[in-house]
Amino acid sequence: MDFEKQAKLKKLETILGYNFKNINLLKQALTHRSMGAKNNERMEFLGDSLVNFIIADILFHQYKKNSEGDLSRIRAFLVKGETLAIIGKKLNLSNYLMLGPGELKSGGFRRESIIADAVEAIIASVYEDAGHKACYEFVLRIYAKKLQKLDPTSVGKDAKTRLQELLQARQENLPEYTVISASGPAHAQEFVVSCFVAKINRKFEAYATNRRKAEQLSAEQALIVLEKK
Amino acid sequence: MDFEKQAKLKKLETILGYNFKNINLLKQALTHRSMGAKNNERMEFLGDSLVNFIIADILFHQYKKNSEGDLSRIRAFLVKGETLAIIGKKLNLSNYLMLGPGELKSGGFRRESIIADAVEAIIASVYEDAGHKACYEFVLRIYAKKLQKLDPTSVGKDAKTRLQELLQARQENLPEYTVISASGPAHAQEFVVSCFVAKINRKFEAYATNRRKAEQLSAEQALIVLEKK
Repeated sequence: MDFEKQAKLKKLETILGYNFKNINLLKQALTHRSMGAKNNERMEFLGDSLVNFIIADILFHQYKKNSEGDLSRIRAFLVKGETLAIIGKKLNLSNYLMLGPGELKSGGFRRESIIADAVEAIIASVYEDAGHKACYEFVLRIYAKKLQKLDPTSVGKDAKTRLQELLQARQENLPEYTVISASGPAHAQEFVVSCFVAKINRKFEAYATNRRKAEQLSAEQALIVLEKK
Repeated sequence: MDFEKQAKLKKLETILGYNFKNINLLKQALTHRSMGAKNNERMEFLGDSLVNFIIADILFHQYKKNSEGDLSRIRAFLVKGETLAIIGKKLNLSNYLMLGPGELKSGGFRRESIIADAVEAIIASVYEDAGHKACYEFVLRIYAKKLQKLDPTSVGKDAKTRLQELLQARQENLPEYTVISASGPAHAQEFVVSCFVAKINRKFEAYATNRRKAEQLSAEQALIVLEKK
């Protein structure tokens, strides 16, 4: 490894808050399959199972009164690609990914799935470098903020479910969804849906390319108003 | 806990090859939700993530030349409910499960999903009792035979895939599947399918309630003959 690359990896170690005994593990974790045979795919496989387990373990002990269903829902939110990609962006991983020329050209370093996979691979690289405890602490560190601001009753629930639960908790009438219009050819439909909340006598309209999505968006708007009350 | 129950759990500890500091953890791991609020569901959630991770870790280090796709396929086979239930039956868990009267009556102690869930919960109970290392060793022990006789190139692959790969490896013609007959009403169809293997000029027929299943069964029969050659 040349000096410039080494200095760069040192900088990433600072961001990660972890110093590798074997820096090649970190290097491999950053290496996309477009770079050739020695890439991060196997590490991603191991890292995926590690983050699933460590987050399950944290939630199991943190939310002792929540059901297995709640724990599953919260975990699913925390380990999904979208969340991993947010974590990876905060760690500035895009700057450190090693991609083949094709992926580089098409902006692969910004692609969420590539960033999320690299986060999983890095988790495995810490495990391989220093074992279970170090890896556990590393996952706790990169998830610290997500875990702090977690609301176990709502996280990972869709807007319609949250709206329904909020109205039920207030013992108010449930929302009514109506398709206002549906147009366009089968492959490019457009829906306008309204969500009527009786208690405040208001309709919230939303537009999307399918009905379910439009309903969710209209529920989200209702939630914004109702959660202020 | 009465003396008889304690003696019974002691016997199970011998089978499991693990002595609990806190025997209540084992007791809870054996308690189906039909017994009430204090059951094994949360433990099953944790145990599922543990077995997924530990098996991933074992495979990652045991099959260094296999791709992430191979590792995923092998792991899926090892942690699926069917495999866990086989392990649970070998541990004689049916004798130790604690089920509510309804489940008892309907033979729940023999139900594969209940046994598989209990295996996962027991894995979590060892982890809660003594931590990561003890749990790792426990999983290695209950999976020892499955891991020993594992063929990484075939495990978890369906019969059609294995038959195709076997014929390709021998540079022979691929099998030909033909529907011999399809009868019965839509909700209760019956299929007879034949699998023709040109090299040995033989047809293998199988019957099932859908075509895909019948094809798999015919391929399995062809494999039995061809693997002897």
